[in-house]
Amino acid sequence: MKKQQSRPNILVVNDDGITAPGIKNLIEVVQEIGNVVVVAPDGPQSGMGHAITIGKPLRFDRVDLYPGVEMYKCSGTPVDCVKLAVNKIFKGKKPDLCVSGVNHGLNNSINVIYSGTMSAAVEGAIEGIPSIGFSLDDFSQEADFGHCKKFIKAISLQVLEHGLPPATLLNVNFPKGDNLKGIKICRQANAKWAEEFDERKDPYERPYYWLTGVFQNNDKGEDTDVWALENDFVSVVPVQFDLTAHHAIPVLNTWTFDV
Amino acid sequence: MKKQQSRPNILVVNDDGITAPGIKNLIEVVQEIGNVVVVAPDGPQSGMGHAITIGKPLRFDRVDLYPGVEMYKCSGTPVDCVKLAVNKIFKGKKPDLCVSGVNHGLNNSINVIYSGTMSAAVEGAIEGIPSIGFSLDDFSQEADFGHCKKFIKAISLQVLEHGLPPATLLNVNFPKGDNLKGIKICRQANAKWAEEFDERKDPYERPYYWLTGVFQNNDKGEDTDVWALENDFVSVVPVQFDLTAHHAIPVLNTWTFDV
Repeated sequence: MKKQQSRPNILVVNDDGITAPGIKNLIEVVQEIGNVVVVAPDGPQSGMGHAITIGKPLRFDRVDLYPGVEMYKCSGTPVDCVKLAVNKIFKGKKPDLCVSGVNHGLNNSINVIYSGTMSAAVEGAIEGIPSIGFSLDDFSQEADFGHCKKFIKAISLQVLEHGLPPATLLNVNFPKGDNLKGIKICRQANAKWAEEFDERKDPYERPYYWLTGVFQNNDKGEDTDVWALENDFVSVVPVQFDLTAHHAIPVLNTWTFDV
Repeated sequence: MKKQQSRPNILVVNDDGITAPGIKNLIEVVQEIGNVVVVAPDGPQSGMGHAITIGKPLRFDRVDLYPGVEMYKCSGTPVDCVKLAVNKIFKGKKPDLCVSGVNHGLNNSINVIYSGTMSAAVEGAIEGIPSIGFSLDDFSQEADFGHCKKFIKAISLQVLEHGLPPATLLNVNFPKGDNLKGIKICRQANAKWAEEFDERKDPYERPYYWLTGVFQNNDKGEDTDVWALENDFVSVVPVQFDLTAHHAIPVLNTWTFDV
């Protein structure tokens, strides 16, 4: 007889806010495999990257949106949510898994660095929790997450079974639609945003600027997340938070500083 | 006779805000070597990480704080400042160097990921500009940056002379005091914050939470930035923004996903 395993404890976070459809879908999946605690921002926090709130205090309150789910909303950033969850809810007894998302919009390639969804997962990993960020190529509030669910479950179960290599987490992105070919392990494509600012005038004739931009991928590699998504694969990129460019250390050691 | 070189164009940014003493000191140094343009937040933006402003517009105005220096203040994040500078000031003709700081407080080890100062430099590097973030181990508004200046100049000149390896930037941290032993090229120490939240009651008896924490370094390596700073060296860490954990890709390729 197979030994009865205790159900894992799973922390769910996001950056689109606690009422977003994406987090509702994520909760529905991980409820099937573990005990769920949700800590999410009380409003949208897209593009907040790894911001933390240090200049002002945070609000942090229990809410009951979905039957039987322990949920908290927080006035801070996605990373604040993870810190509060670890410190105030789990109180040092770390959850077995941290899942973030499902984000409304892709976080592939360089977007990983601007994304609150991914930064929450990075913070989970810094805390030593196996962590995964999930994102879907659809900004709409009516986005259909149905085709993502079996992949979210399968990837989460593999992470719970194997753990992750030290100091790494996963960045998982889903194409739209239900013709997915499978999962592809990838590297982050070397792409960037060519930003533009939409200049407008306020009612007092003073200028203001709204950030817009165009995603520019110059990386033709077929081992990238951009390629995988364009070819109807779910992309899975292992992510690290040691930002050291180790290969550059020998180069810098040849320099002579005139001090 | 040595050929007369044209003076480099240098973008100066920070996260402590345009009136901070740290940026004033940085401006004074780089004015000696190039044509300076300053774009900085109109107030403190510490801990903003790689946040960008997408849900609301930005203000962006010329200011004149220091004689002969072209300066702009921005209502957004440090990364917004770099994007505005590239798009609205340099208009696609990239500056030769982007320097960020000098931050009031260290950005060594894992702090690189929370730091607005470093994220501004990372954004400069994403834009293809040779970029350096500078930080001093002193939070005080009366901090003495005098001992940093010759190092800032020497490091900036080396970057202008050699350029930097592709897709890398430098994270430079200074100890306090003027007994510095020199410059050490390092890797990011494997450390983290053990966060705590100071719980208080507002005047209406509702709880609020203030993030605090203790820096925990479990990395005993003598090749780390933490070690260098503790031993009176200026630490220089090459930083990358490809977050792919390349070593983990073969591991993940052994997994079987049940979909």
